[in-house]
Amino acid sequence: MSILIKNGRVIYGESLDVVNADVLIEGNRIVKVGKGINEAADTVIDAKGRVVSPGFVNLHTHSPMGLLRGLADDLPLMDWLQNHIWPREAKLTPEYIKVGAYLGALEMIRSGTTTFLDMYFQMDKVAEAVLEAGLRGYLSYGMIDLGDPDKTDKEVKEALREMEAIEKLNSDRVHFAFGPHAPYTCSIALLGRVRELASEHGKLITIHVSETMAEIGQITERYGKSPVVLLDDIGFLGRDVIIAHGVWLDSRDIQILARHGVTVAHNPGSNMKLASGVMPIQKLLNAGVNVGLGTDGAASNNNLDMLEEMKLAALLHKVHNLDPVIADAKTVFRMATLNGARALGIKAGVIKEGYLADIAIIDFNKPHLRPVNNVISHLVYSANGNDVETTIVDGKILMLDGEVLTLDEGKVLEEAERVVEKIR
Amino acid sequence: MSILIKNGRVIYGESLDVVNADVLIEGNRIVKVGKGINEAADTVIDAKGRVVSPGFVNLHTHSPMGLLRGLADDLPLMDWLQNHIWPREAKLTPEYIKVGAYLGALEMIRSGTTTFLDMYFQMDKVAEAVLEAGLRGYLSYGMIDLGDPDKTDKEVKEALREMEAIEKLNSDRVHFAFGPHAPYTCSIALLGRVRELASEHGKLITIHVSETMAEIGQITERYGKSPVVLLDDIGFLGRDVIIAHGVWLDSRDIQILARHGVTVAHNPGSNMKLASGVMPIQKLLNAGVNVGLGTDGAASNNNLDMLEEMKLAALLHKVHNLDPVIADAKTVFRMATLNGARALGIKAGVIKEGYLADIAIIDFNKPHLRPVNNVISHLVYSANGNDVETTIVDGKILMLDGEVLTLDEGKVLEEAERVVEKIR
Repeated sequence: MSILIKNGRVIYGESLDVVNADVLIEGNRIVKVGKGINEAADTVIDAKGRVVSPGFVNLHTHSPMGLLRGLADDLPLMDWLQNHIWPREAKLTPEYIKVGAYLGALEMIRSGTTTFLDMYFQMDKVAEAVLEAGLRGYLSYGMIDLGDPDKTDKEVKEALREMEAIEKLNSDRVHFAFGPHAPYTCSIALLGRVRELASEHGKLITIHVSETMAEIGQITERYGKSPVVLLDDIGFLGRDVIIAHGVWLDSRDIQILARHGVTVAHNPGSNMKLASGVMPIQKLLNAGVNVGLGTDGAASNNNLDMLEEMKLAALLHKVHNLDPVIADAKTVFRMATLNGARALGIKAGVIKEGYLADIAIIDFNKPHLRPVNNVISHLVYSANGNDVETTIVDGKILMLDGEVLTLDEGKVLEEAERVVEKIR
Repeated sequence: MSILIKNGRVIYGESLDVVNADVLIEGNRIVKVGKGINEAADTVIDAKGRVVSPGFVNLHTHSPMGLLRGLADDLPLMDWLQNHIWPREAKLTPEYIKVGAYLGALEMIRSGTTTFLDMYFQMDKVAEAVLEAGLRGYLSYGMIDLGDPDKTDKEVKEALREMEAIEKLNSDRVHFAFGPHAPYTCSIALLGRVRELASEHGKLITIHVSETMAEIGQITERYGKSPVVLLDDIGFLGRDVIIAHGVWLDSRDIQILARHGVTVAHNPGSNMKLASGVMPIQKLLNAGVNVGLGTDGAASNNNLDMLEEMKLAALLHKVHNLDPVIADAKTVFRMATLNGARALGIKAGVIKEGYLADIAIIDFNKPHLRPVNNVISHLVYSANGNDVETTIVDGKILMLDGEVLTLDEGKVLEEAERVVEKIR
């Protein structure tokens, strides 16, 4: 299988140079980028007036939560979780979750996301949906034991069950990851078991850390230290750990994260909507911490649009610091692409020979993207997910000219409505 | 001319109730909203799976600035203005500005904006474009005299010339407004002349006020009082005044604005991108000040998407105040619709019998807008301008099913590229 993308404006390499070029894909890799490529290809896409961008890497989400979109807004985090989200989640069957996963996959394909790091439950069902959708997914089961040793064992067992089920799919695209929910919902025992299992099986770990002030208070009262120091002290941190949020980090925390090569998945939309706070982005970047970008779940965003998320990231930090220079367009664009791929240990998030063919083609023939004065600026500040026209993952076309090829969109939307009737 | 919109979910009245209903438009008014309307109509639109929303009122923009989109980002306000924006604006001819106005009109039509309050120059040219586009526009010439008495006279003369040219168009949709740029760029003499002329001719006034900390410092040094107190002391304020930004307002300023019935046009995207600061929204609302919403120009946003702007407004204030309850979806939706119409003194921004037929129809058959758990939440938190399918202004269809009927879109986009080559 080969694909030739002709006549586009290509965002090339880690420097994000915009060049008029063609892109040749063979198998699941980008093999050639240059002017006037005329090799025969199974599929030729004319990208005239389009921008050929690395696909987006959503480094923190809960993909099936689209089902709960808009069911509860404008509420404090704990009221939102305890009185609205958790009671409904308790009603979610594996089949409902699979419907949610299809819905999430559709949203991501439509908005140019090619890879995502997920945390939810029944991830074997999510994996089936992701496999069918064609996305690249790192799927973690969200473990919560609340300090109950019986629960610890049950959670570990469930994680291993889901891991085995996902490994049986034998896919290069769909992977299991460990997802202990957070230091305030997981015991030290559980965190220790996860650390061992992840090392033993060579899996990534993702965990919510330092999301709210309340969490900092709770962990400090319980352990006499910050969540990051706690995780450091138990030997939990490493290059294979991706912490979500990292809003309330102090200087010591940041140094610890940098020392261990931990990635932080930034979720500006969710942090704003739930009023969690503002991540210290410049301090993290200055310390050399790898920062990726995520949407969080659609119940706290309320969509999975990485283009919108880039704008939120760029704008939030400027106003919060009263400094229009920070979180500039290129920095934010890299967070949404190559930094995310780096965290997951894949050669993706960049358009360059030898990289995975994970690509979003964006239609610039629209008034809000013209004149084409600055492609990266337009993607960060002017575009949104609906501008994505074609999405390619692992060398396969998932959406072509606005038509999703891998899933029956109408059917998924109908099923989502039916599921929500049952969990209201 | 009559239009019947069938089978939609209609956002009805000031309470924003979502009802399954049909909407009948005769001439430029909504005449009937209800189930099963079967009157004959010249045009019937099937809105099944769609939401029928009041069109959006963009209460502060500089519509031709789309030409400068992305030419300069991530810069401090004064560097951005003095070294990037103003030198290019100096090269703009009346014909170039008209092209910019067409581009801005296209963007607004495509994203469901039906009415806007504009400030730029050569507004007689902008007026011609707005008239042709079919939008409802309140167009102010941005006056700047920098304290030079010769300039004061010239600016007043130019404003009156543009006012007369616009009045000659004899349109119910296209109106002149006075637009002294700001207290820091206009002399007291100019502000006084504007106040008199606006009262004499029955025109609105719009002016940038308290946008940056630097402005507060400058005005306080020059006059020994805040910009709002200054405007109050010279008798400038009234119900016909719409101040843009209002970021750095203290309690006394807010009381003054409330007392005079002044409207504040809130521009969260621009205030964030230029790092101007955060408007005290809850204090303004608590004091009973009418707050509308605007995008500002596309060089500081970088689009004219009011749906995106609603999300920015809702999110910004939650995180800034660490309070997820404020700037809730309905409050923000009203800012973007009826509060804007109220400021302009028009019976619009609401779908209800007797109101102007200014309507946006939004396609909800998309994964990011499903399940349809909460229409207003989805519009504020999940949707963007690209979801708008049909735009109706003054009882005329400007865009139908994604096709703009009043302008030649391809030609405008091409001309915009040509203009920008000449002003780089």
